[in-house]
Formats: sequence, structure tokens, C-alpha cells
Amino acid sequence: MLKPLIALTALAAGVLAIPAIAQTAPAAPLPSDPAPSDWRDIPDDEIMAITFRDGRQVFVRLAARFAPGHVANLRQIAKAHWWDGTSVYRVQENWVTQWGGDEKTAPPEIVARPPAEFEIHAFEAAQRLTRADGYSAMSGVTADGWPIASDGKAAWLTHCYGMVGVARDQLPDTGAGTELFTPIGQSARRLDRNYTVVGRIVEGMHYMSAMPRSSATMGVYATAAERTPIASVRLASQLPEDERPRFQYRAADNERYAAWIRLREQPAAPTVATGLEVCDLPVGVRRKP
Amino acid sequence: MLKPLIALTALAAGVLAIPAIAQTAPAAPLPSDPAPSDWRDIPDDEIMAITFRDGRQVFVRLAARFAPGHVANLRQIAKAHWWDGTSVYRVQENWVTQWGGDEKTAPPEIVARPPAEFEIHAFEAAQRLTRADGYSAMSGVTADGWPIASDGKAAWLTHCYGMVGVARDQLPDTGAGTELFTPIGQSARRLDRNYTVVGRIVEGMHYMSAMPRSSATMGVYATAAERTPIASVRLASQLPEDERPRFQYRAADNERYAAWIRLREQPAAPTVATGLEVCDLPVGVRRKP
Repeated sequence: MLKPLIALTALAAGVLAIPAIAQTAPAAPLPSDPAPSDWRDIPDDEIMAITFRDGRQVFVRLAARFAPGHVANLRQIAKAHWWDGTSVYRVQENWVTQWGGDEKTAPPEIVARPPAEFEIHAFEAAQRLTRADGYSAMSGVTADGWPIASDGKAAWLTHCYGMVGVARDQLPDTGAGTELFTPIGQSARRLDRNYTVVGRIVEGMHYMSAMPRSSATMGVYATAAERTPIASVRLASQLPEDERPRFQYRAADNERYAAWIRLREQPAAPTVATGLEVCDLPVGVRRKP
Repeated sequence: MLKPLIALTALAAGVLAIPAIAQTAPAAPLPSDPAPSDWRDIPDDEIMAITFRDGRQVFVRLAARFAPGHVANLRQIAKAHWWDGTSVYRVQENWVTQWGGDEKTAPPEIVARPPAEFEIHAFEAAQRLTRADGYSAMSGVTADGWPIASDGKAAWLTHCYGMVGVARDQLPDTGAGTELFTPIGQSARRLDRNYTVVGRIVEGMHYMSAMPRSSATMGVYATAAERTPIASVRLASQLPEDERPRFQYRAADNERYAAWIRLREQPAAPTVATGLEVCDLPVGVRRKP
């Protein structure tokens, strides 16, 4: 007697519901189905592949448009192979998984203290940011698939589950990008405008989220044995052409995307509509076919 | 060069910040420190202990006031030792961990199809529910420590990270309580008023959240070997007096609790205040000293 959370779950996992239909008769497209042109390539220098020593891989889409200074650093760090041999050293329950070179001198190529990039001053047209919540007057998903919030003057990427932020010391400009984190529980939106967001995990988040939690101070593993070793971090653009992982995002500037949101907002009876916030909005990313 | 997410993290983990002060001079109490009387006992028949075969334990506080029908069923199921030998059979990334007897006939003692308990009609005084967000006009934490939302007419426990809900089939009254789930990622607030909430995990959530995700349909493990076997589920009240796990909640109907919330809402500079929503409000539970 299996009782899955019917209807909501497939959407919740960030995938389109796949109706069970006989293979012989192709289904008519749903209004929420993307058109082929809705899938747009993510540039190779905006995909970062983290390979653990055991072979598992996590892929990050870099937010070059929102945090150009930090993304420039990240590209340098990857190019220097500086992260190779570092680790996931912190996993704090209902808070973050954090990785990078916590005990290693930063590479000389990077800007040691880049100015904080907490906000941008140009932002999406207001019609995309229609949602108010407890953290911002306006929020939504950008045309190119980033969760964003705004107070009407500035905009910022918001710390949803799976976004990637730059760890730092107390002062705002002390995060160079050598250490990164991702929220693994309740969205860490209290970090908005306090930490620079540089990306989003687009594949492999299930590895980051399922690592054993540490009960030591702030979830930093007490022993080296608990750490998950990182074999390498590379941009796709640093790999040979035929080895590059290639991803596409689903454009959100079209009626098909709006219909996808409505599927969540206006579920079929007997499910009751409950509202929807930015971190629960669907964001589409896939491997390039 | 460790870069923890300073200042916010200790609060984020749901614990009070512990200032580093020499042991010889006891610190003056902070306005956010609970008074001894703020810690109130949770009744033994409202604590449910889940013991995995490997000895790890998870403790659930039952929401007897909000879902009396389902909690009555849960007590019967535990009393019958019916969950013993069942398992955690579903772990879906950024959605839920689910456990119970998915392939077992329900015990005859329980009400097979209890009426849904999605809402209650008496609810906390309005001054406790001051927060609007994308899911409700009013939300907050009850005096006895439950995250709650309301539309001004009814109130409901909200599916924050770590809350416990009743899995069911499509119709609202098809969840008896034999199978339960907890959100392990972004809060599953779209389930509010669609699923009956019966409790909250008060200890051991880090086990539920770190289990390997399944890529099979809806995260249901494809093989028996992937499941986490449950040795037993007992109410504290079903155990010998001297073996009972005892917990206390932190009462939220006092100025000290309000000061605790303000610590999050109005962080010390240079951290910027960003807002606060119900699932990010601090909730205090501890082992009874």
C-alpha cells in the first residue's frame, strides 16, 4: 500500500509530470511543455564540474551576469587546479554544505578581496517579479532561470536551496571564492544581500544534500576522515571539446513557462491551491540532448 | 583559513549563540535567554521514538492538539508494535523522507479512514501570527512551539522542514497514519491544508535528511537493500518510566522568546536585516535536564 504524495511530487522534484500514456500514441503537447527553442545553451565557461575522488560529480551553473567579479575569480581558481585535493569540510544540518580550500593559501592569480556583489542595480522587468513574501516585496524567476528578489531599487539572487554562495569572514569583502556553500535545508534567505551568490547546482545536488551532518561547531567536520575529498574542479570550457558537460536552461520569458508555474499554483482538485514563493518556483535545466 | 558563515549560523542551527566567555565568570543572562520556567514538559504520550535497526534514533513530538484523530491512530499503531520491521522506503531529493508500512495491512485497531485534519478552527491570538508571506496572510509560532499559518478563519500547522505529515492516496481521508513523511529540503508548504500534519521531528532529523536519495519514481527506493530498516517505534509513555526519553519545549508566550526572534530579525552590523518567515522562526526543544 504505497502512498506517494500524489500529483504534487513530480513537480516538486523540478521535473515535468510525465503522464502514463501508451508509447504507441504520442501525447499532444501540454500548454506547459517547453518548445524546443525554450531550451537555451549555457556557455561552457558558465558550467563548473566538481568531481569527487569517488567519481561522483556535481555541476554548478555560474551567475556571471550577477557576480562578475567573483565568477572571474572562480574561473581563475579552477584554471589553476587549485581546488584539486580540497574537500567538502562542513555539512551543517538544515543549513549548508560547504567546500573548498579552507586550510590552503589562496592562489595568487585571484583578487584577494573582491568587492561584495550582493546586489545588482539593473534587474528584470517588473512583470517577472510579482511575488511578495517575508523577505522581499518582489520576487520571481529571471528569463534565463535565476531566482531573484528585489526591493524595487536593487535586485539580488536569493539563497534558495541549491544556490551557491561565497563563504567569507565577517567583513563583506573577505570572500574570494575559494570556499563555497550551498543551502541544504530550509532556504537560507536571511543570507540575501549579506553573501555573494555565484551560482546554482544544476546536477548532483542530491550528493551535496545527503552527506552526513557534523555535530561539531557550525557543522565543520571534526576529523579529516569525515571530509569528502574533491579530485578536481574544472570549467566545461577547460575540458577537451568532446568531454565537456553541456547544459541548457529553460527560458522563462514565454507563455509555456507561465503555464508551468500555473500547474503548481492552480493544482487539479482535490488538491487545494496554497500559494507559491520564489524558491518553490520551477526552474528548468537539462543536459543538452 | 576557515570561513564559517559567521554570526548567523549558530542561530540557524536552532541553538542559542553561546558566547565564548571564561568559565570562571558566569555571563549575565541575555534578553533572549529562556527563564527556567520557559521550558515546559512535553507529555510522554506526545513523544514518539523511532529506533532504526542500527540503533540510531529519531524523536517526534506529536501534535495532539491539532490532529487528535490521527494522533490517536499513531498511538494505536505504536502500541501494536506495527511499525516494527517496517522501513524508510522513500527519500526524494529536495522533497521528503517517508517511512512506515508501505506493503503491510494496516492494524485493525485504528480508524482506517479518519477524517482529514488539515485545519483547526480555534487558533492562536492574532498577535502571534503577524507574518504574511506567499502562502498565508498570517503566520507565526504558537505559544507551545508549533509553526502555524492562518487565513483569519482557520489555522493549520505548516509543512516546514522537519514537520511530520501523513502520507495518503489521492482522496483527503485516505491517510491513516501508517505511513509518514517529513520535508527534507525547501519547506513543502504547498502541502498545507492538503495533508494532515501530525508532528515535528525534535531530535535526529539529521538522520532523516542525510539518507541517500533515490532517483526512482517519486524517490521510492527501487530495492529493499536501499531501505533503512526500523527496529521499533514506541511512544515514551509505552516505555518503562526510567527509559523514557523526555523533552521540553520552549514556551513562546514571553518577552524572552520575542527577543530571540529579534536576534534573527535584527542582526548585528555588518549583517543586513532581510526579513523572516515562519519556517525560519526559532523553535526551542531540548532534552529534559
